[in-house]
Amino acid sequence: MSKNHSETAILRIHCPDQRGIVARVTDFIHRNNGNIVALDQHTDRNEERFFMRVEWELQNFELARDQIQPAFEFAIANPCKMTWKLHFSDYTPRMALFVSKMSHCLYDILARYQSGEMKVEIPLVISNHRDLEEVVNKFGIKFIHIPITAATKQEQEQKELEILREHQIDFIVLARYMQILSQSFVDNYPERVINIHHSFLPAFVGAKPYHAAHARGVKIIGATSHYVTTDLDAGPIIDQDVARITHHDNVEKLIQKGRDVEKIVLSRAVMAHVDRKTLVYKNKTVIFQ
Amino acid sequence: MSKNHSETAILRIHCPDQRGIVARVTDFIHRNNGNIVALDQHTDRNEERFFMRVEWELQNFELARDQIQPAFEFAIANPCKMTWKLHFSDYTPRMALFVSKMSHCLYDILARYQSGEMKVEIPLVISNHRDLEEVVNKFGIKFIHIPITAATKQEQEQKELEILREHQIDFIVLARYMQILSQSFVDNYPERVINIHHSFLPAFVGAKPYHAAHARGVKIIGATSHYVTTDLDAGPIIDQDVARITHHDNVEKLIQKGRDVEKIVLSRAVMAHVDRKTLVYKNKTVIFQ
Amino acid sequence: MSKNHSETAILRIHCPDQRGIVARVTDFIHRNNGNIVALDQHTDRNEERFFMRVEWELQNFELARDQIQPAFEFAIANPCKMTWKLHFSDYTPRMALFVSKMSHCLYDILARYQSGEMKVEIPLVISNHRDLEEVVNKFGIKFIHIPITAATKQEQEQKELEILREHQIDFIVLARYMQILSQSFVDNYPERVINIHHSFLPAFVGAKPYHAAHARGVKIIGATSHYVTTDLDAGPIIDQDVARITHHDNVEKLIQKGRDVEKIVLSRAVMAHVDRKTLVYKNKTVIFQ
Amino acid sequence: MSKNHSETAILRIHCPDQRGIVARVTDFIHRNNGNIVALDQHTDRNEERFFMRVEWELQNFELARDQIQPAFEFAIANPCKMTWKLHFSDYTPRMALFVSKMSHCLYDILARYQSGEMKVEIPLVISNHRDLEEVVNKFGIKFIHIPITAATKQEQEQKELEILREHQIDFIVLARYMQILSQSFVDNYPERVINIHHSFLPAFVGAKPYHAAHARGVKIIGATSHYVTTDLDAGPIIDQDVARITHHDNVEKLIQKGRDVEKIVLSRAVMAHVDRKTLVYKNKTVIFQ
Repeated sequence: MSKNHSETAILRIHCPDQRGIVARVTDFIHRNNGNIVALDQHTDRNEERFFMRVEWELQNFELARDQIQPAFEFAIANPCKMTWKLHFSDYTPRMALFVSKMSHCLYDILARYQSGEMKVEIPLVISNHRDLEEVVNKFGIKFIHIPITAATKQEQEQKELEILREHQIDFIVLARYMQILSQSFVDNYPERVINIHHSFLPAFVGAKPYHAAHARGVKIIGATSHYVTTDLDAGPIIDQDVARITHHDNVEKLIQKGRDVEKIVLSRAVMAHVDRKTLVYKNKTVIFQ
Repeated sequence: MSKNHSETAILRIHCPDQRGIVARVTDFIHRNNGNIVALDQHTDRNEERFFMRVEWELQNFELARDQIQPAFEFAIANPCKMTWKLHFSDYTPRMALFVSKMSHCLYDILARYQSGEMKVEIPLVISNHRDLEEVVNKFGIKFIHIPITAATKQEQEQKELEILREHQIDFIVLARYMQILSQSFVDNYPERVINIHHSFLPAFVGAKPYHAAHARGVKIIGATSHYVTTDLDAGPIIDQDVARITHHDNVEKLIQKGRDVEKIVLSRAVMAHVDRKTLVYKNKTVIFQ
Repeated sequence: MSKNHSETAILRIHCPDQRGIVARVTDFIHRNNGNIVALDQHTDRNEERFFMRVEWELQNFELARDQIQPAFEFAIANPCKMTWKLHFSDYTPRMALFVSKMSHCLYDILARYQSGEMKVEIPLVISNHRDLEEVVNKFGIKFIHIPITAATKQEQEQKELEILREHQIDFIVLARYMQILSQSFVDNYPERVINIHHSFLPAFVGAKPYHAAHARGVKIIGATSHYVTTDLDAGPIIDQDVARITHHDNVEKLIQKGRDVEKIVLSRAVMAHVDRKTLVYKNKTVIFQ
Repeated sequence: MSKNHSETAILRIHCPDQRGIVARVTDFIHRNNGNIVALDQHTDRNEERFFMRVEWELQNFELARDQIQPAFEFAIANPCKMTWKLHFSDYTPRMALFVSKMSHCLYDILARYQSGEMKVEIPLVISNHRDLEEVVNKFGIKFIHIPITAATKQEQEQKELEILREHQIDFIVLARYMQILSQSFVDNYPERVINIHHSFLPAFVGAKPYHAAHARGVKIIGATSHYVTTDLDAGPIIDQDVARITHHDNVEKLIQKGRDVEKIVLSRAVMAHVDRKTLVYKNKTVIFQ
């Protein structure tokens, strides 16, 4: 988007498919003098479900920000039985990074953050190890070391949740964080924890997927970013990508080639989330244009 | 689409960007009791141009087929200064294939045609050589041999045009046809001649692109399907794809690897054209969902 | 390879890794006045195993064809504890196709066969249905209908084995053949039955992988060609490839996009097998240059 | 490679194709008690040229390091008319980075450098702008600002050459450095300056390739890493990769998608160079396994 655009409102909805939804929503915006800058919609005919993302300029829009929600709810969302979210483009979401020992995803995100490509605030990075403390400090971000053992897990997760609340964190990115989050932790951030799994899911769920891929003799490896749910590696997939390998590649080489796929896939997923381009329905995602 | 769908109308439009076009068009369809089964739109902000494809069921639609055009023109197209096309899904477009000596694209298209994947009629195949006559006959299609020399070109193209008209051909696919069509020939089928060029355009325009790619030492080769204009290999691109190569691949191997890319890219482009998913504007294409 | 090359011998070996194997093998060929036209080797350091493919011109080679085997065995293969195979490029392998109802892989193979790209003999096609009889006949190949039910399976497989022996079939390609071969059948053609599975294995083993992929919400689909073993969809992988999909693609669209991946991956695998570029070791493949 | 390996010697050669080269070279290594850990070779039959890379452990090798060169030269290289290079894996090459204002390639390289993935020394970064000084400092690397104007170019390049010599720089990486190096500069580092061009060469040579790609309406963009020669964007290609785009992507989006391709392609090329996997012959590269 060009810099001359005013701030925008972003509406994401899904509802039972019915006639005239696009017309009703766009009419609502136009009647209030809004200029639509992006519109993408999708109808899932099997599910008989309608999905839409629309973005319009707030400049000259005749409803104040706090009027939009009640007006839209009354006029359209309720009669159409919509599930919906409204965001404003001038709010910068606050993101926490969880890392362990590997730096490639962390660096890729921090580089995009610092260059302004990834439009987030990163108040803190949490890690169960101290290995990446120096990297994080380099970028002027607070590093919080929270070691986890089986015995301390519950207590330490409570501590993490407090820290996240204290820093008003909107969503969490697991950048090769090697701990499994408990159900109660995840329940605090539904559809707001993004993980990168180092395989082409659903192949090679769980630990050591590159070893499993090597043992199976696949010719292509992959990485999968997904929203975390309480089922391990089974949450809604946001993005995937792959790299070709050969019999020359041992496990170490798979890990090396995989790193490039992981970091790009995770960063793309985070940017889709930040740009409000994702929508979850029944454990699957719609990724808008 | 499931078989239970009734026949549909497909509308493709582009016009100067302006407020409320989506609402106006969808409202036109809904008011006449049409059920929209697909809608995709795009706004090019640099060009300030709006593009849209919408498809709705004709069953229960309150306008007769021959009423749609005048009604839409009067109510929406003219006031909005639209360029537009209307098609009906139960009309099967009539396609002519032009080939020379290579069979891979021809086979790929005929296999899709015979299995019902590519929804066209193919009344005839024209070739400047006799090499593929047997292949074409196998599929029960008329093969017409029209040899071309520099001296006979103009006259032979006239003959081709007569044959095409006689068979009411809607569009032409050059499936590795190794003759350059004259401007006057192309002018008869604007945006209705699809070519496959065996390179990743705009690299390696013209003859022997695989030799040129090998000489340059590229690490990836490609193929490009495009609408034919009077500028050689410079028409609007419909689709492209690539294949990785290595220093082990000599020109013959490039040609072999390239064949698979060519045939898939050409068939995808033809199917996009047949499904009315393409729209040309200023030497570029919009490819709808 | 240029047409001017004389016929070649192709040797594929694997053995415990040890010093000097490349030197010993190439020296054996050179001492007998052979001109090496291709050499590729690989050492798996974890398995401490050495793999090699070497191809040399028979013109001027000082050993007669039937002398090569005993000479090589005595001088090199036995002392080095090699597992090895020797082939001559002027022998055209005899391939049987097994199909059911879908034609895309069948057409892709037959088109390559007829154009001379795939250097095989195809004496017959076996099918448990009659749907593709006409397609096969078009190419002048014998079509044999062998319906299979749970009750008749054992008996019918015996019949198939007789037919295959009678036609001196070297290897079998399952071009979307929708029957599972019994263990005893497969045992007759070890590393000589090639299947295409319509998923990115090991994801979505078994029936209806596109339905499973759609249900899981993956963003990329794939296809896998592999040698058939008695474990369903678990044999050594020869080749894989993928295609990107979106939330717009329903199951029918996945099946359509998948067809292109399946046919290309299967044909590439068959050509690698025919060119003696594959080598199986411990349920994995080495694919030589 | 596992950490237990001793240091290795790496030999890259090319020469007129002739019988027995592999045997002679491997025999030379074995006779001196060397254990080969990697061997890759290629014969270009059109050029009648042989290419080879071989790597062996120095532990127990019976020639001292300074004896290898004269021994090999006398015994093999001279009689076979070889062009060749010998390196030792325990020498870490010294690399200078040239940057301008964009940080994505710089970050990608520095992250790999710091994590130990890219085995180089980076004594300094040179830039014609100050924008990235802070980024470079963060990594504890010397940043040298050398502004260039048409008037000062010759003089400033002399200064750069002095600095490079002073720091014993082995090779230079242009990580989106937006100045064209003069012929005399490049002549000092033949096959030792690596550039990333932000297009799929040879398409869109020169300035603003994303604008040109957008104007042409391509469906795929790419990036190309190559050795710099005195012909602009025409040097030997080391690696290329691509990304799919659609009509929704404006120039800014192309630039964003392109950044990910650029950084991965450049880093892969640098690592191939550092691992002594590249070999230049007649403006093309051989990239060994």
